[in-house]
Amino acid sequence: MNFKLIVGLAATLFLSTSGFGQSIHQLKKVDKPLVLASQGSFYVGGESSDQSFTELGSFGPAGHITINQMYVRYMVPQNVTGSPVIMIHGMTLTGKTWETTPDGRIGWDEYFVRNGFPVYIPDQVGRGRSGFNQAAFNRVRGNESKPQEQAPMWRFSDETVIPNFRIGDTTGIVHSESLFPEEALVELSKQAVPDVSMSLPNPNPTFKALADLSTDLNKATLISHSQSGSYPIEAALIDPEGIKNMILVEPGHCPTELKEEQLIKLKNIPTVVVFGDYLDQPTGVPHSWRTAYESCKIFTEELTQAGGKAEIWHLPEMGYKGNSHVLMQDKNNLQIADLLMNWLNKN
Amino acid sequence: MNFKLIVGLAATLFLSTSGFGQSIHQLKKVDKPLVLASQGSFYVGGESSDQSFTELGSFGPAGHITINQMYVRYMVPQNVTGSPVIMIHGMTLTGKTWETTPDGRIGWDEYFVRNGFPVYIPDQVGRGRSGFNQAAFNRVRGNESKPQEQAPMWRFSDETVIPNFRIGDTTGIVHSESLFPEEALVELSKQAVPDVSMSLPNPNPTFKALADLSTDLNKATLISHSQSGSYPIEAALIDPEGIKNMILVEPGHCPTELKEEQLIKLKNIPTVVVFGDYLDQPTGVPHSWRTAYESCKIFTEELTQAGGKAEIWHLPEMGYKGNSHVLMQDKNNLQIADLLMNWLNKN
Repeated sequence: MNFKLIVGLAATLFLSTSGFGQSIHQLKKVDKPLVLASQGSFYVGGESSDQSFTELGSFGPAGHITINQMYVRYMVPQNVTGSPVIMIHGMTLTGKTWETTPDGRIGWDEYFVRNGFPVYIPDQVGRGRSGFNQAAFNRVRGNESKPQEQAPMWRFSDETVIPNFRIGDTTGIVHSESLFPEEALVELSKQAVPDVSMSLPNPNPTFKALADLSTDLNKATLISHSQSGSYPIEAALIDPEGIKNMILVEPGHCPTELKEEQLIKLKNIPTVVVFGDYLDQPTGVPHSWRTAYESCKIFTEELTQAGGKAEIWHLPEMGYKGNSHVLMQDKNNLQIADLLMNWLNKN
Repeated sequence: MNFKLIVGLAATLFLSTSGFGQSIHQLKKVDKPLVLASQGSFYVGGESSDQSFTELGSFGPAGHITINQMYVRYMVPQNVTGSPVIMIHGMTLTGKTWETTPDGRIGWDEYFVRNGFPVYIPDQVGRGRSGFNQAAFNRVRGNESKPQEQAPMWRFSDETVIPNFRIGDTTGIVHSESLFPEEALVELSKQAVPDVSMSLPNPNPTFKALADLSTDLNKATLISHSQSGSYPIEAALIDPEGIKNMILVEPGHCPTELKEEQLIKLKNIPTVVVFGDYLDQPTGVPHSWRTAYESCKIFTEELTQAGGKAEIWHLPEMGYKGNSHVLMQDKNNLQIADLLMNWLNKN
């Protein structure tokens, strides 16, 4: 039972080279229609950048482009019963994280909408449909700057994802109780795009974009994941007014040395941090999920001491075993969503 | 009337630097709810690539990643009355092209769904949520190859977009009869992402992905735009079986020297090519829309002579004046969509 992989990994990788990964007929439908008051997309933020011919990829005359905008897709249910929810993806990923799961089940985006919550899904500035500032790369290509002046473009290898996303161990063997749909590992691999976070301005424009979007929505819940784990906190430190709740799903770390004036900004925002199983397993990269968990434990304790309402959930201790780092895609993803919506409805 | 810009351009560019471009309250709602049988996203194609530590951005151990997959978002209406439609965007853009317009009106994606057509919106391989192969860029950064071995990343400047998208002239003055929502030019600018088409394998994996998706959908209409203008033809030449109709919106060019065996593959696919206004104006770049139009005229004539059913529409000759290159975002976008849906329903 414990040895489904590596053979399984090789098989799914092989399938992918046949050139057609997933048939639409593998996507599962919900019987009840989805009734939307509205859906669509728009951008938050952005700024004009004056760029040279070389910086534009030697394409057309020099001039201005817009950079640092954040793409957002949204769905508003016909019967709204909850406050808006913004779901922010993690490293090397896009808003796809929250959509149809790798094995074709409905994602948290649709499930929250079906439960009365308007849902807003950004692509972080620098990735997916938000784009990134290509100027530094083209300057290097045009011999106007040194290769080291262009940012690295990060991707996780499939071999890294299995242990680091706590789906299996460092040898590629999937945990016998893993709730990640193992047969769809190659579909998870397809979700990744180059991550040029190192090329972004400091602070990351996504923080302000999230604060602005929350304010525009007149109180929204921010749900973050992994790399974006602390983004709701960063957004709240810019402007807490629009933020109703914070849900940090598997944050890569939590801030543990917040100043008093920062805690004051955060304390009126009910917060929950959620972690899945296998926190102590080796990840194969210089990152420990146990350390991440412990930092978030300190964060929630400090926030509580400051008068805030903050919880941390370790799912195995609550009876949910086998959840991976991408628990919004695990087989019990809707069950975990139910826990969170119950918590939201109580606040 | 003719002199709304350059002042207008400066004003919109200035607005964008305030850090918050568009409020959700500017988005227009349709009164009637949107009733979907299903919605979601998935990937078509993709292949495994064995990459080194450097190629992965020096992030984690070396290993495999998936590249060349095509992201597709879809909406299927509850009452399906038409066959599936796949809408493919153009150069430096993403699937956003077909979504909410820059000034917040509903896009062709939702409008086709509201009229009974299941709609599938890909991001071309190499852009947006489909990602791209970052290896060559990281090899340059790691001094493993020369700067010229990484592809250029193309962006159009805002100053280029106005004449080349035929919204205004080369001095930035918007045409007095332009149907593009001029006040939203900065929102159009935000739609652009770096285009790394030059780094893609040859043939472009998007061609086969479109053919495979069409086959999987058991007869789909391919709607293309600009750079992707000829992609439906490329997909049909790989496998015409799944392709029901082809709609080429403002293709950058059409093939004019197809061989007999190629025309035989295409002739059972009813085809329409659509062009907007201002074909003869200077574009400010080495591209002539009149030349593009003429090549498509030859293409439709050759296809007709081979026994096919092919039309070319020049909208001003049909009474629709003022349409830009991005006519799916112009103020009469739904009117143009109606013309196309009528044509589809007749086939």
